[in-house]
Amino acid sequence: MRRQKEVFVDFLSNFVSDFIGQLQSPTLGFLIGGMIIAALGSQLQIPDSIYKFIVFMLLIKVGLSGGIAIRKANLGEIFLPALFAVLLGILIVFIARYTLAQLPNIKTVDALATGGLFGAVSGSTLAAGLTALEAQGIEYEAWAAALYPFMDIPALVTAIVMASVYLSKRRNDKEEEFSKVEYVSKQAVAAGDYSSMEYPTTRQEYLSQQRGTPKRVEIWPIVKESLQGSALSALLLGLALGLFTQPESVYESFFNPLFRGLLSILMLIMGMEATARLSELRKVAQWYAVYAFIAPLVHGFIAFGFGMIAHALTGFSLGGVVILAVIACSSSDISGPPTLRAGIPSANPSAYVGSSTAIGTPVAIGIGIPLYIGLAQAIMGG
Amino acid sequence: MRRQKEVFVDFLSNFVSDFIGQLQSPTLGFLIGGMIIAALGSQLQIPDSIYKFIVFMLLIKVGLSGGIAIRKANLGEIFLPALFAVLLGILIVFIARYTLAQLPNIKTVDALATGGLFGAVSGSTLAAGLTALEAQGIEYEAWAAALYPFMDIPALVTAIVMASVYLSKRRNDKEEEFSKVEYVSKQAVAAGDYSSMEYPTTRQEYLSQQRGTPKRVEIWPIVKESLQGSALSALLLGLALGLFTQPESVYESFFNPLFRGLLSILMLIMGMEATARLSELRKVAQWYAVYAFIAPLVHGFIAFGFGMIAHALTGFSLGGVVILAVIACSSSDISGPPTLRAGIPSANPSAYVGSSTAIGTPVAIGIGIPLYIGLAQAIMGG
Amino acid sequence: MRRQKEVFVDFLSNFVSDFIGQLQSPTLGFLIGGMIIAALGSQLQIPDSIYKFIVFMLLIKVGLSGGIAIRKANLGEIFLPALFAVLLGILIVFIARYTLAQLPNIKTVDALATGGLFGAVSGSTLAAGLTALEAQGIEYEAWAAALYPFMDIPALVTAIVMASVYLSKRRNDKEEEFSKVEYVSKQAVAAGDYSSMEYPTTRQEYLSQQRGTPKRVEIWPIVKESLQGSALSALLLGLALGLFTQPESVYESFFNPLFRGLLSILMLIMGMEATARLSELRKVAQWYAVYAFIAPLVHGFIAFGFGMIAHALTGFSLGGVVILAVIACSSSDISGPPTLRAGIPSANPSAYVGSSTAIGTPVAIGIGIPLYIGLAQAIMGG
Repeated sequence: MRRQKEVFVDFLSNFVSDFIGQLQSPTLGFLIGGMIIAALGSQLQIPDSIYKFIVFMLLIKVGLSGGIAIRKANLGEIFLPALFAVLLGILIVFIARYTLAQLPNIKTVDALATGGLFGAVSGSTLAAGLTALEAQGIEYEAWAAALYPFMDIPALVTAIVMASVYLSKRRNDKEEEFSKVEYVSKQAVAAGDYSSMEYPTTRQEYLSQQRGTPKRVEIWPIVKESLQGSALSALLLGLALGLFTQPESVYESFFNPLFRGLLSILMLIMGMEATARLSELRKVAQWYAVYAFIAPLVHGFIAFGFGMIAHALTGFSLGGVVILAVIACSSSDISGPPTLRAGIPSANPSAYVGSSTAIGTPVAIGIGIPLYIGLAQAIMGG
Repeated sequence: MRRQKEVFVDFLSNFVSDFIGQLQSPTLGFLIGGMIIAALGSQLQIPDSIYKFIVFMLLIKVGLSGGIAIRKANLGEIFLPALFAVLLGILIVFIARYTLAQLPNIKTVDALATGGLFGAVSGSTLAAGLTALEAQGIEYEAWAAALYPFMDIPALVTAIVMASVYLSKRRNDKEEEFSKVEYVSKQAVAAGDYSSMEYPTTRQEYLSQQRGTPKRVEIWPIVKESLQGSALSALLLGLALGLFTQPESVYESFFNPLFRGLLSILMLIMGMEATARLSELRKVAQWYAVYAFIAPLVHGFIAFGFGMIAHALTGFSLGGVVILAVIACSSSDISGPPTLRAGIPSANPSAYVGSSTAIGTPVAIGIGIPLYIGLAQAIMGG
Repeated sequence: MRRQKEVFVDFLSNFVSDFIGQLQSPTLGFLIGGMIIAALGSQLQIPDSIYKFIVFMLLIKVGLSGGIAIRKANLGEIFLPALFAVLLGILIVFIARYTLAQLPNIKTVDALATGGLFGAVSGSTLAAGLTALEAQGIEYEAWAAALYPFMDIPALVTAIVMASVYLSKRRNDKEEEFSKVEYVSKQAVAAGDYSSMEYPTTRQEYLSQQRGTPKRVEIWPIVKESLQGSALSALLLGLALGLFTQPESVYESFFNPLFRGLLSILMLIMGMEATARLSELRKVAQWYAVYAFIAPLVHGFIAFGFGMIAHALTGFSLGGVVILAVIACSSSDISGPPTLRAGIPSANPSAYVGSSTAIGTPVAIGIGIPLYIGLAQAIMGG
């Protein structure tokens, strides 16, 4: 009894210190800094060409590091867990689409971007997980950490492609059913909800669109267009260069060292923009908080289940199962934001970056990692 | 007698070698290089968006390093000397406003920018001072070097705000007293002074404007506008991030290592622009030389006096008093130029950068440091 | 007999592995990556201002490293070999002008850019040569490696100036002899050759222009304009700063570490552009392959001859003679492409970068270096 209380106090103090540490991290610090100076009326601007170049640099780096990690992995051994990682990355976005996006007043693009971010992987959470496994003396495959790009990149690509498909369908529906949308808007005005007029992407409108008989939208041209867009082509180019050439020298000397700094500038830009869009979140902030607290743990449990299948079929170690769960539990505060910012420009960064960095990451590190390690130890002991 | 001569020869040779070293430093080298290629008709151009980004990077870095230094200082102990440093930073700009700016044909904005640069602090002069103190075995507080941002940032902010206020007043006066300005211009033409027509910011015009009954200019909106401008908001954002978050990782890996290189490119840009404006300085170069030789020593003596007050009141060490004097004596060749370039765009960089780098810094290192150390030793001995 | 066969097998396997290594190098990897994503219809774009800044950064760095190397060399000792290096750099461009450019359907600007690239020097080939000399225990002067900028920079300047002169003459001829050009175009159309209409710089047209009585073109203004252009003024500014100031700190901390990364991005841009222009090369690729195989070896032999003159006159070591030959044999995959891209924008990068990186460099490392070392050993033994 007394031990339980101690564990709980330990957990709480760890969680709070993780939370404060996140608030002071350069990533969130620059985001909040940007929000504050924009609110104070600062004239500071980062030229658009610089912004585009920063995004390019970040995406090429994310792709390169993924490609290098995959090239160095033993593809025979890694095959089944990697396949599961890919499936999990895609599944997590679908989960967000059919849970978070269905909540009242949540915009679908914001929900998809948040799902993409929670499907993507945080390197620092992964590192914390590896450290915890070593501290507990649990063995794992040396290549298990190389699973991360197999979940990271599919999640981001799925989120961007689903957002493109969604926006295309909506544009299409609007043209076809102009009178119906207008009717919904009028209802909203009658109900005092003016926000849905400006950004009519709420659940009500979505449902109203589903009720109609929408013209079939061709999916493949939209997928192709997403892949040809500047965001995904930079990401996939980096992946291909990492896989098929030997860019290690230029990766280590250029793309990797510049990454954190350029990311902090991107965060500043996103923060300045976020101020203007913060009011959009006023009514829905609680839903993002709920999602950001529960979703990582759910994702981790699903991944743990997948991992146990690989454990049974191919002898994937229990340490490896924990790593797969930690990767699924983590949400990206590094590779995700620039990719989603460029790939889903209409999504509100305050929604997805705030959810991931302020709540998702402390939950993953403070609750997720001890939980999955405890589960593995219980199975080992059993 | 013989020893005095030796000392003088030593001093002169040290001063000359410092002067030549400064001319070969990347900072001044790129400035002069830019002036020469512009004079030779080079078509080289740095795109405007790159220029803006470089300035942003430099200002964020200056702010960050100041904020980190202040956060790490013991604010209780440092309070009085820090307050004096702030006052000195502001005072030095006022001194320039009421000495240098009053000299014939000196433009007020150029004088204010020069004052700002001499109020700002040179890290290398400070390092030379610390080394000299250690060589003489004089003790000082470990936090004394952290006084620099308390003088640096207020001096730059004061210079930019005073220049904004001055320019607003002048614009206002011009509208009100158009006939009077025209009369001055006619006088100038009669006296063969055509330059004052194009840039009518000379002392004569200023005095003529004072004689009128100018409409009262609201100061606060101008101060607010200066602080919201891109230069000061980048600087203050960096300061706040350094104070309230923990940006050390991104500072050490990104902003600090890129600083000197980006500064050299800014110097090149400033040099290319300086060529076009060099003729403005022909009649007044001697005044900048006189100011740049005398002002650092005067600033150091005033700071020494302030330091002695803190010595008497709170036991601030004599080594600390020397450091405060060296900080006041130094003029910035690093943090100042980009801030002033962005904050007072109409000031002529050849005036302030030339004064500071070519004369101010050798004077501070070659004369100032030995002078204040000698003074401290005389007081200790007495 | 058996040894000869072994040597040949060794040579072939070395050559093939050098070739594959080059294809996987970041330089060529990013070029090919850019070509592929452009062919796949990617929307990725690097903003023009970023492109200009990258070129500036690369050219300043090339100039700085050359200037620093020359400043540190002993100019008395190095004089004769350095003079020969300058002459060789210029000569190699003239060789390309009067061999490669005369081949059917080769555009003169492409041939000049290729000549400039083969006259410029590859640092990695030079390093491979020094390593091979040390492995064989052949002595050479410590300053011999500092010969490279004496060949590199004159070759690039000569190529750019000759291209400017050529293009000016052609523009001039066109105005003067409009009917004659039209006649050639009609002939080309009759012969089914439409490409020469769009880019009428083929040998036929050149010859037709020679046959006329062209108005004399003033050379000096064109040379001056080339030197004032953004490419050569950045290069020469860097050279002057390296020679006359001490930019080592900023070179080591900024320009040098960023070089390879920025180069890889430039390669990506050049690759994306190359896709659009690849069809131009369809008919002439074999000539570039022949040139890129033969020319390096010829350049190396000529340089070996020059080196032997210095050996006879001033006692230049045989190891130094080999280094001079290796420098001439090498073609630049680093300093050359950005300089030529900016200096001869109308030249097709697929032609010159492809020739140099895919064929020239493997030939220089795999054939050239062993050849010249063998020659030196034969002379020493004789």
